[in-house]
Formats: sequence, C-alpha cells, structure tokens
Amino acid sequence: MDSSTQGNTHLSDTQRIDALRLIRSDHVGPRTFRSLVSHFGSARSALERLPDLARRGGAARAGQICSEEDARREIAAAAKMGVALVAPGEAGYPPRLAGIDDAPPLLGVRGQRDALMRPMIAIVGSRNASGAGLKFAEKLARDLGDAGFVIVSGLARGIDQAAHRASLTSCTIAVLAGGHDKIYPPEHEGLLFALLENGGAISEMPIGHVPRARDFPRRNRLISGAALGVVVIEAAHRSGSLITARMAAEQGREVFAVPGSPLDPRAAGTNDLIKQGAALVTEASDVINAVAPIMERPIALLSREPDDFVSFDEPASGDRERIIALLGPSPVGIDDLIRLAGTSAATVRIVLLELELAGRLERHGGGLVSMI
Amino acid sequence: MDSSTQGNTHLSDTQRIDALRLIRSDHVGPRTFRSLVSHFGSARSALERLPDLARRGGAARAGQICSEEDARREIAAAAKMGVALVAPGEAGYPPRLAGIDDAPPLLGVRGQRDALMRPMIAIVGSRNASGAGLKFAEKLARDLGDAGFVIVSGLARGIDQAAHRASLTSCTIAVLAGGHDKIYPPEHEGLLFALLENGGAISEMPIGHVPRARDFPRRNRLISGAALGVVVIEAAHRSGSLITARMAAEQGREVFAVPGSPLDPRAAGTNDLIKQGAALVTEASDVINAVAPIMERPIALLSREPDDFVSFDEPASGDRERIIALLGPSPVGIDDLIRLAGTSAATVRIVLLELELAGRLERHGGGLVSMI
Repeated sequence: MDSSTQGNTHLSDTQRIDALRLIRSDHVGPRTFRSLVSHFGSARSALERLPDLARRGGAARAGQICSEEDARREIAAAAKMGVALVAPGEAGYPPRLAGIDDAPPLLGVRGQRDALMRPMIAIVGSRNASGAGLKFAEKLARDLGDAGFVIVSGLARGIDQAAHRASLTSCTIAVLAGGHDKIYPPEHEGLLFALLENGGAISEMPIGHVPRARDFPRRNRLISGAALGVVVIEAAHRSGSLITARMAAEQGREVFAVPGSPLDPRAAGTNDLIKQGAALVTEASDVINAVAPIMERPIALLSREPDDFVSFDEPASGDRERIIALLGPSPVGIDDLIRLAGTSAATVRIVLLELELAGRLERHGGGLVSMI
Repeated sequence: MDSSTQGNTHLSDTQRIDALRLIRSDHVGPRTFRSLVSHFGSARSALERLPDLARRGGAARAGQICSEEDARREIAAAAKMGVALVAPGEAGYPPRLAGIDDAPPLLGVRGQRDALMRPMIAIVGSRNASGAGLKFAEKLARDLGDAGFVIVSGLARGIDQAAHRASLTSCTIAVLAGGHDKIYPPEHEGLLFALLENGGAISEMPIGHVPRARDFPRRNRLISGAALGVVVIEAAHRSGSLITARMAAEQGREVFAVPGSPLDPRAAGTNDLIKQGAALVTEASDVINAVAPIMERPIALLSREPDDFVSFDEPASGDRERIIALLGPSPVGIDDLIRLAGTSAATVRIVLLELELAGRLERHGGGLVSMI
C-alpha cells in the first residue's frame, strides 16, 4: 500500500522555512526549485545564489526573494487554520504526487493527514452536468469509496461536487486552486468543512491567494498527480476536465472516461478520450481492475536531474550568447539545445537556470523551454 | 475497388442445378458443401456419392437428396420474382461474403446486382431503439451512403429500419432470414420494395421458407460477412446485434460500436463491445478512416481445404470406430482428432463427412465438431 512506502521524511523548521522562501521567490516554480536544490545541495545555498544567477541571466532588476519573516508569517497563518506545509516524503504529502515532474516542494494540507497517504482515484467532469451524469458520479464515488479508494476532485460545481458528496462518509480530498482560505466557488465552503471530517484538502498556493483563471489548469496537475487514475464523467470539447486527462496521461496515470450518446455534447470530450485510448468506464470494477496491478508496484521515485555541474563557474560569455541565440518563443528541447550549442549539458542547464530566474525563460513539460 | 476483383465467374445451367441440388439435400450445409465439392471435384460427383457416404456414416435411412426437378422448380420460382441464384465469384454475389468460411454456395439475390458488388458497411442494433439511437442511425447511414458505402442491415424494426430508410436514395441491402417471398416483419414489405430501386436483398433460403427463430442468428453471419465492418447502435446485453458483432470479429471484420450512458440499458451491449476492443463511433469518419486501409488490400480468397484424399477408399473399420469413440457432445478440434486417432487426416475427414451426411455430426466454427 502507498502509506507504507512514504511519510518517513521530516524537515527541520529551518529547512521548511528555507524551502518556503525559495518556492515563494520570484521566477521559482517547482521545476526550478528542484533544479536549484539538486545543483546547490540545499534550499539555503540556492537562496544565497539567486541574486547572482538572475543578474547573469540578464534580469533588468533583481527578482523579489521571499524573506524569512514572510515565510514564518505564512507558516503561522496556515497553522492557524489547521494547514500544515509538508514536503514530498513527509506525512500528509500524497505519495504519488511526490513523483510528478513538477511536484510542489511544499504542499498546504488540511484535514486527515493519513487519508492523504491512501490510494486515490480522481473523479472530474462538467460543471453543468446532466442529471444522469451527476447520478453516475455519485454511484461511482460511492462504490470506489466502499472499495477503499479515496476520491480526489476539484470542489467545483457539478460532477466534482457530486463525487465529493457521495464519498463524504468514506473519504474524499479537495484540491484547491487558491489558498486554503479562498474557497472557490464560495458556496462550497460547507462541503469543504464536511469533507475535512474524514478526508482533506490540499493547495500549493499561499494563504490569501485568490484563484485566477490560470490557476485552475495548474491545479489540475495535482488532481491527476495525486491519483492512481482519473475518471472523466461528462466533458464537452475543450473543457477543463480534458486538461486533467491530458496531464494524467503525461504523468503516466490511468485515464478513464464515461461514454455517452454521440448526440449529447456533454459526452463529446469523454467519447474522444476513449477514441484516443482511455479506458471506458461503466462501473467501479472497470476502474478497480485496471488500477489493481499498479497498486502492487512500488511508487516510482522522483528521477533527479543529473548533478553534472557542481563548480558553477560562470559560463564562458560566448557559450551563453550561443545558447540564447538558439532560444525563441517556440519551445525547444533541452537535449536539442545541448547538441546545437556544442557545449556541455552543465553549461546549458546553468544558462537556462539563469534565464529562468531572470524571468526570461518558460519551462514546458517534456523537457521543452522557450523565451518569454 | 471490390467490383473489379470479382464477378467474372459464370456457372452453366447444369452446374447451377447441381449446386442447388447439393446444398438443398439433407445434412448438407455450406461447410459440407465446400468439403464435398473440394474432395469430389464437382457438385455432380458429390451428389452421386451422397447415399453411400451417409450409409457408411450410419444413417438409419438415407437423407433426402434434392431432385433435379425440385431444383429447376426453385430456380423458376425465384426467377419469377426477380431473384437470381448466384454462386461466389458471379456478378451479384458480394465479394467479401464469398470469403467467409461458411459462405452460401448459392445466394438468392434481388435488385441491383452491381450494388451488391460495392463496399458495404453493416449497421445493426436494437429493435426497440430510443429516439436518439434512431436519429443517430439515420445520420450515420446517410453520411456513409454519401461517402459511397452501401448500407447493409437486417430489415428489422428499430435501428435496421432507420439505417435502410436513410440510405434508400444512396444504396442499401437487406439480408433476409427467410425466403425472398417471406418478408419479416411483414409490414416492412414496402421498405423492401423501396430499397430494391437502388439497392438489393439477399437470402440463402429457398423461396417459400418462413423464417424461424434460429434462422436469424444464422442470417446475421451474412450481414457481417458481406461488409467491411459492422456498426452496432444501441444493443442491450445478450441481444442479436451482439451475435452479429461476434461473427464479424470471427470473420475478421471491423467491429464498431456507438457509446451511450452507463445508465442506459440500451447502451450496455455497445459499451461492452468497446471495452472488448471495438472501435468507438460518434461520426461517419470514424468508420471511413478505419476501413480505408482495408479497402486498399485485395479481398482474401477463400482458403480451400487440402485435397488430401482423392481415392475415397472406405476407411478401415477400426479407424472409423476409433474416430467415433473420440467424438461426443462437446466440440473437439479436427486437428486434435487427427492426432488422437493416429490415422491420416484424409481418413478423419472422410469419416467426419460420412457422419455429417448421416445427420450425426455438427460442425461449429473454428474447425470444431461434435456428435449430435
């Protein structure tokens, strides 16, 4: 079971504060965080190098570095509402979520921490679902809950709500797009409190963060990442649930879809998913049988980037310019960059890190980067 | 295209009468017919050997052999209503149908014979279909018809009817379970006449044959056999359309299914088909894209049984008894029989043929036989 393989790590207060400062600093996302810690050995060392790296990357002015005071204030505010900031490997950090490429270095968790260590199935779908869709979501969530799975979803109206409600007595997890105190939609606060009884809520955003439109797709990777698989119930073309399904596939998670009539636009997205290879679901056993063999395998550990530069000499000026010249607004593979630049992988990586910290580089999935 | 590869054979009147006599004789089905003609060289020679073979197989009394007079009468009665009895390879015999294991040696065809040579897609489904199912069947049949495909179906109520109606102006083929003069259901006579205008109707049964319950599943193999693929629209568990889908899979035809809500029992069968690997269909292009590569390949010719006995010496009495002792009510493979009996394949085959003509043996698909 998941719970036996993880949850043994424990950060010191200082480590936690350093980690929070680093992830809350300008231009540092989960991937950059991982790169920095991997290369500099600790969040503390990385924090010390940030201003220099950003300057070398051509930042017009230094990005904001989160102060120790701000970090302590956030931890205190979180603690006040029962939210702990936990790192991958710590109790309360969903073990499978720790394995994704861009796992949050610290996750705000609330509710029953042991629930967050159990095997999860995500159920997502339309906000304006049909009666049949809602009924099916309830039945599936109840049956999967009875079978011992934790139901994870996004607390939205429609399918999410139905899935959470039907698994309140078993166990359900809400993944938030904003801070723990900024529930969306606001009328689901009651549902959130109810689910904290047996389940939990998670967010990578600071307390006080009001969710913006772009935070929802970003949040969706946590829904799929925490789960063994994602079941999509009723999704129109180009809906948010399909983003979650795509992320699930990229993360190596099982993708399940509930079919519907070709004449029902709310089934267009799910039928398409099945055409593309998602497993068709009509009952809980379709999901249970598919994930059973996965649960028996140990959870894949996060693959670390190669630690192939440790001296951090400033790259030769010609190298940096050659690499920058190869970059543009179209995403390009890091492997291709290394080949085309004719320099060492270490040099390319340090230049990319500099550019990123200067706010000039965007990282995409699959090892692709582009200039902003 | 199909039409260029077949339709060049032509039977003489005598050959046609002999073939009809053989297939209309007791205990001779399409597979036995093929065996007999393959071994004895012609239907005429096989007819001469029938009484002797049946006696050797232990028939209590000789089975009825269709007389030349009866055969002439059937051909005349068929001709009177515009039905021609055509053999595989002749114009009007659907080329792909000629390739199935148990292709009718003579097929009663009516309507536009060139239509029967064109690429076909079968559309089948529930008799008590929903409004959405009927609407989808109409749209799919119309779109496939517009794309140049002939729609083949079973003239039943519900989905069949909707598919035929929507392809009246393009081209549609009805496959009958009874004789051409015994239309089922009777109220679809008007639909039949309408579809003969641009399309056709086929049956392997003699004029005057009233369809019995067991004739429908038998007929279904012709629907799938004539087509490149079978689309199942709305089918409950254990429905006749699923038999057609199974036969299609056994015949190497593409199987397509239209999804529906898990809460709709009329979609249970089609959703199951998709779980088992059928392609999900929401629009005509799903079918067209899947069959396009198949249409480019030449149509597989009927594999002939090996002509490995030509002397037809009566098997040694010990051989026959040993083979009979190995047979029982459970189907057994002919290959296993040959191995277990320790005799030649030729001896096993002739003994099986004798037993079959004596009405004591049943042949199943996949080279399996059992005693009756």
